[in-house]
Amino acid sequence: MAAALELFGTRDVEDVSIDDVASAAGASRALVYHYFGGKQELYVAALRSAARQLEARLQPQGGGRALDELAFGLGRYFDFVEEHAAGFAALLRGGPAGRTGEVGEIVDGVRRRLFALVQKQMGVEEPGPVLRTTLRSWVASVEAAGLDWLEHRDIDRSTLERMLVDHMVALLGVAAAHDGDAAGLIELY
Amino acid sequence: MAAALELFGTRDVEDVSIDDVASAAGASRALVYHYFGGKQELYVAALRSAARQLEARLQPQGGGRALDELAFGLGRYFDFVEEHAAGFAALLRGGPAGRTGEVGEIVDGVRRRLFALVQKQMGVEEPGPVLRTTLRSWVASVEAAGLDWLEHRDIDRSTLERMLVDHMVALLGVAAAHDGDAAGLIELY
Repeated sequence: MAAALELFGTRDVEDVSIDDVASAAGASRALVYHYFGGKQELYVAALRSAARQLEARLQPQGGGRALDELAFGLGRYFDFVEEHAAGFAALLRGGPAGRTGEVGEIVDGVRRRLFALVQKQMGVEEPGPVLRTTLRSWVASVEAAGLDWLEHRDIDRSTLERMLVDHMVALLGVAAAHDGDAAGLIELY
Repeated sequence: MAAALELFGTRDVEDVSIDDVASAAGASRALVYHYFGGKQELYVAALRSAARQLEARLQPQGGGRALDELAFGLGRYFDFVEEHAAGFAALLRGGPAGRTGEVGEIVDGVRRRLFALVQKQMGVEEPGPVLRTTLRSWVASVEAAGLDWLEHRDIDRSTLERMLVDHMVALLGVAAAHDGDAAGLIELY
């Protein structure tokens, strides 16, 4: 699985064969087929494993200021983006050919859990519509920024991460202007 | 094609058959197969047609203040989202099963052209990295807000559109703080 993750993370899924995975893992082609059934199943399993890794890394440390926790989480997120560059870009750039419903569900699952993490970190149990839209927009904008950064790499990662923290503060400011409930959160940031 | 657009826009692609399209268009199943070759090809053709429609609607009117043009464009965008609700949601929620590389390319093409429209409207020829990331993040956040709105519909469309305009202003403020080139744009908004 580690070998598959490494290969799918650094190359387009179209360019990875079962033979590549078997040889990187020091296993036979037959064994890989036996365990996974085929390349698509192997890809889905690798994706699930990558999603779990990402979520484990983003678990809040606790105790820090909300803004510091957010900055810390973004750092871990971009570590992950950088390590799985090709896989991340292929997946989110409209998705690889032959994508199945399962792949879409894994991607959506990660988005939902990132959203839940940010929400939890803010101590919000049930965000109202304005705050929910705001947080979801921010999660989407982080994903887009990650993809843009992989394509161009013409901005420092640290600058980009600071910008995205500033985005959150700015977007919460907008939310507060549209919804009293969101106003209380501003003080956290 | 109008019949296919209507069906793919209001139902999940899995729930639309060639027979449905043929019967809605008052054509024979054989004729639909003859022109399009199959359901996937028909879906891709309908998607291309929808993408062209969206882009045509978003052409700036010209002459207005940048902020008004943006608000106007967002209104047209959400008209489109509302009219093609099921299709829009299925496409962007990780994408339908059996998605092909072509579908991903159409989605990415729309994103790129939305980005180019906003950029043009600002009178920016070559955005620097900070501004490019900012605009791309905003386009992604509009898409996410559209999807969220379709799923919940617990916020007025007009409130949501105003919030997204405010997001742009707030994000440009952040960009200006990180990059002198972006600072000049703030005055437009």
